[in-house]
Amino acid sequence: MKRILDRINQPADLQGLSVNELKRLAQDIRDELVHVTTNQTGGHLASNLGVVELTLALHRAFNSPKDKIVWDVSHQVYVQKLIDGRRERFNTIRTLGGLSGFADRGESAHDQFGAGHAGTAISAAAGMAAARDHTGESYHCIAVLGDGALTAGMAMEALNHAGHMRTGMLVVLNDNGMSISHNTGALSTTVNRVRMDPIYQSVNQAAESLLPSLPAGKRLLRTAAWLKSRARAAMFAPAMFFEHFGFEYFGPVDGHNIEELLQALEGVKEAMDRPVLLHVLTQKGHGYPPAEADPIKLHGVSAPGGAKPAAPSYSQVFADTVTKIMEQDPRVVAITAAMLEGTGLVRTQEAFPDRVYDAGIAEQHAVTFAAGLATQGVVPVCGIYSTFLQRGFDQVVHDVALQNLHVVFAMDRAGFVGDDGKTHQGAFDISYLRALPNMAICAPKDENELQHLLYTGVQHRGPFAVRFPRGAGAGVAMDPVLKALPLGKGELLRAGTDAAILAFGAPVPAALAAAEALAAQGISCAVVNARWAKPLDETLLASVCAGVRGIVTVEENVLAGGFGDAVLELLNRKAIRLPVVTRTMPDLYVDHGPQGHFRSVYGQDAAGLAAAVREALGAQPSVHAEVERLIEEGFRRE
Amino acid sequence: MKRILDRINQPADLQGLSVNELKRLAQDIRDELVHVTTNQTGGHLASNLGVVELTLALHRAFNSPKDKIVWDVSHQVYVQKLIDGRRERFNTIRTLGGLSGFADRGESAHDQFGAGHAGTAISAAAGMAAARDHTGESYHCIAVLGDGALTAGMAMEALNHAGHMRTGMLVVLNDNGMSISHNTGALSTTVNRVRMDPIYQSVNQAAESLLPSLPAGKRLLRTAAWLKSRARAAMFAPAMFFEHFGFEYFGPVDGHNIEELLQALEGVKEAMDRPVLLHVLTQKGHGYPPAEADPIKLHGVSAPGGAKPAAPSYSQVFADTVTKIMEQDPRVVAITAAMLEGTGLVRTQEAFPDRVYDAGIAEQHAVTFAAGLATQGVVPVCGIYSTFLQRGFDQVVHDVALQNLHVVFAMDRAGFVGDDGKTHQGAFDISYLRALPNMAICAPKDENELQHLLYTGVQHRGPFAVRFPRGAGAGVAMDPVLKALPLGKGELLRAGTDAAILAFGAPVPAALAAAEALAAQGISCAVVNARWAKPLDETLLASVCAGVRGIVTVEENVLAGGFGDAVLELLNRKAIRLPVVTRTMPDLYVDHGPQGHFRSVYGQDAAGLAAAVREALGAQPSVHAEVERLIEEGFRRE
Repeated sequence: MKRILDRINQPADLQGLSVNELKRLAQDIRDELVHVTTNQTGGHLASNLGVVELTLALHRAFNSPKDKIVWDVSHQVYVQKLIDGRRERFNTIRTLGGLSGFADRGESAHDQFGAGHAGTAISAAAGMAAARDHTGESYHCIAVLGDGALTAGMAMEALNHAGHMRTGMLVVLNDNGMSISHNTGALSTTVNRVRMDPIYQSVNQAAESLLPSLPAGKRLLRTAAWLKSRARAAMFAPAMFFEHFGFEYFGPVDGHNIEELLQALEGVKEAMDRPVLLHVLTQKGHGYPPAEADPIKLHGVSAPGGAKPAAPSYSQVFADTVTKIMEQDPRVVAITAAMLEGTGLVRTQEAFPDRVYDAGIAEQHAVTFAAGLATQGVVPVCGIYSTFLQRGFDQVVHDVALQNLHVVFAMDRAGFVGDDGKTHQGAFDISYLRALPNMAICAPKDENELQHLLYTGVQHRGPFAVRFPRGAGAGVAMDPVLKALPLGKGELLRAGTDAAILAFGAPVPAALAAAEALAAQGISCAVVNARWAKPLDETLLASVCAGVRGIVTVEENVLAGGFGDAVLELLNRKAIRLPVVTRTMPDLYVDHGPQGHFRSVYGQDAAGLAAAVREALGAQPSVHAEVERLIEEGFRRE
Repeated sequence: MKRILDRINQPADLQGLSVNELKRLAQDIRDELVHVTTNQTGGHLASNLGVVELTLALHRAFNSPKDKIVWDVSHQVYVQKLIDGRRERFNTIRTLGGLSGFADRGESAHDQFGAGHAGTAISAAAGMAAARDHTGESYHCIAVLGDGALTAGMAMEALNHAGHMRTGMLVVLNDNGMSISHNTGALSTTVNRVRMDPIYQSVNQAAESLLPSLPAGKRLLRTAAWLKSRARAAMFAPAMFFEHFGFEYFGPVDGHNIEELLQALEGVKEAMDRPVLLHVLTQKGHGYPPAEADPIKLHGVSAPGGAKPAAPSYSQVFADTVTKIMEQDPRVVAITAAMLEGTGLVRTQEAFPDRVYDAGIAEQHAVTFAAGLATQGVVPVCGIYSTFLQRGFDQVVHDVALQNLHVVFAMDRAGFVGDDGKTHQGAFDISYLRALPNMAICAPKDENELQHLLYTGVQHRGPFAVRFPRGAGAGVAMDPVLKALPLGKGELLRAGTDAAILAFGAPVPAALAAAEALAAQGISCAVVNARWAKPLDETLLASVCAGVRGIVTVEENVLAGGFGDAVLELLNRKAIRLPVVTRTMPDLYVDHGPQGHFRSVYGQDAAGLAAAVREALGAQPSVHAEVERLIEEGFRRE
């Protein structure tokens, strides 16, 4: 039997389908999701299985792209990609040159707003609604977000503002009882109370028994009133919560019952001249037993075929080291912002349940909470990805750095991130942290150095940041005893008289390989493991640079404000006037694809660094011409 | 009669006072606040007048510094400074070398947590409470915040996390019905409903008539239960709101009735083994008729004596220009984050009430809301101070810059901020924005150029940021017609053959004066108004630099990632190898005091820039030796 899915080339194609066909389509989609993610590309499986019916219902009830459907975080847009004309390319998702794993405005008109971090959808949809009211156009604006996103303060800022403005819009609360891991936060109790609320249960049953008796024609018209009265009568805690913000509450409805969803959306539509919220109950992983059984594990699945790396991941080394430090040092606690699994801290929490805090998707609070702990002599280690720490930037500035408080930031996923792409690249942390007085910033050359730098951070007094890449370590031997490395001291790994590569963090091994290759060509190249971007090892770097004719810096961060800039500042201050080739992440948002691919494209692998050294010694520029052209083009677009 | 205030040298001295004496003390404090701020230093008058009784009650009920009292924003700590040993220096507040206008951990043990931006207090106090529980110590943790701070998402993040953890702490909601300007946000309706709630009124009256009849000894013991039952009985909207977050609600109490406050605090203290909130109703400006009548105007008062500047302020030019642009261009709207007065947009709002959005103290939402508007072709101009935009950094990265959306950021208070000091310095915006692909960043040399650059931003397509300083313009003539300046094109203001000063923004006039002075000494110094930090005017800057022997860059931003770094990158790329003296804000948090003072200290006035030029031409370094020593010392402290 031919799949219904194969007939759906745009959302409008849903209009002709019967409810039974929609149900079969949902099954087609589930099969495709499971097949592609588990057999081919990997990706966010469980959350997409949870929104199959919701996506179909939204695209049936609304008219995208005229109506604006904004997905929060947007890792759950796979279903939409399958029905809006991207089906043929769906098996390229998250692969180089293929579809993004998130919404991307450049990819489809149906991707109304890109996202990657939680909590932005209400703000974006409210902006679109305000634009509609400003220009006098007529379309619907819908923000779809998970219950976990509600722990993000900006979601509440947006509810508050939109509720106050009385903006005509719909927030769909996709409530699966958990965000990536189990929700923290008192609010999740409020929202989830509905699941076991006896009043809800009885009202729900009464409503269901009542509904079929209404004449079909009137049923739709009365849906809104019915939903509303149901909510009011039950006095749900969530209803009242959202009504404090000025949102009218409808629901809850069964997010896997497509009839109920369509009915609810048709009803809610009538009320969309004001801010309304529809509470939808879904199950993460729905319809695929392995994902239903363990939705956290199947939140993201890996592409098959990759041999399990021999070395532990940096995340694992981070978490193991924090656990080890906590065993030795009672001052130390760990903090995560809803990333217990991603950071590895879930294992630390098992060992020390009272000393690991999960602040929710709430980096602003997490950072200032850490600062509060630090005022009392407790040493918090914040495990926050490089890209997510952007969310707590002002709090790092004021609450930690300005007050010179001893908080250790461990930034995972610094540099090229791989399959997650643009929104998750850790491209800016050196820039935004190096600007801050009091801040110490370091990066290890391998996983063994990571454990020592974490220990160094705990022994340090003051703001401290260590960044490390996504993925497996180099497989080096791990010292059994942790040691504190001196602040601002790098190491000369290899002497050289022609050129020097000054490497910060992950690129160190490639720099060594480049020097080895250059030696075979008669070029003597020094390699420095800089280790610190702030304070810089001025003595070592200046002495190495003074003895060569050309310099290469390399880091996985953009140039502006990064380690390369720090070196340029130093050389200028020391009046060392030599050619410097800066190998950095580009002044572009780097796409999804293998880390190794982009390291090569941007000249950070051994071959690229060897070419950079030759360039520093007078050869023609090797890379970056294409990059510069693209950047120029970006500015010329306007 | 000797003032009671003169006998209070520490909070413990409050313990011996009768209620009548506390009332007289409150009057002494009001007199002192009005006298010092209006006659001498200026400062945040109205908000401090509103918390006189609350501060006294808190310091009587709790034992600071053992107990931790954390003030949100902390511009309302003047009262505390008057009673905790800083009275003698109070008349130095906000002046060079004097007391800070905010809480400052370096200034007093009673300043438990510094602040300057709203919404951090709950997080910090929750961290302190978690530290207490971790170390097994015993003290109380109290966060005091205004109702306006509740629009800050991180405050809600913190309520949610602390409520979930069941942290033993008290949040005092100082509800004066407005934040700096009138609260926006549906939530303020919820909170303020209590003021006119007939149920509250009657319960309140009943309670008051009942209370005096209780035996005095039992009254205190029963206070908590009474408050609680009062809240429960009334089913206040705010009570339910906070209980959703897991906070037990007490109140509301009259924040100017010291007896009622003391009674409430004693009662609440009994419940502080869990998260509790006390709702206190206060009046901004209370007890000083001019401030009661116009609390917004008297939110901050200016020090007397300063002659009114002849030129309009940059803020005024900004707001006037936005109004003018909106008259001409229907696409344009303006957004502020609770700073209608500070940014000047209050006047724009009068002209275009439907086209100015006040998002509340909610920079994260404000930025993404702007991005949402931009997706539909509306052109939002976001008037957000340089320091406050730090709060929306991740949203600038993802929602605006990554998506290359046309949002204009107008960053007031960029550079040296003056009396507000450390937390309000605009020291980092070039660094955190220049790192971002797609972003255009400019700064005007004077207020006439500001109006053109704003117009340029509106004509541009893509993310655009213009920064300008606090204070009066140069008094230049304003062109009647707005014009778009070419992207990435600076201007050579003065040719020169010995040296060049490359100035970005505010320091341009000083650079011209320096060149004039140098000419008299036989040194020919070019001056460039760089205008753009991104994209840099590479052609102009390179050609000027290639013709001289030494270069000075000057900007009101730190070096790391700033304009100076951009110039070093360019010179390296163009192989122009010359001495560059970078005059920037220091790698320190700059204290409060006159802008001119710090411009001089950090070598940005005409004399300092002339010295910098001589240094670039081979003379001994003139400034920064002391600065570098201080920074070194900071790192050596650990």
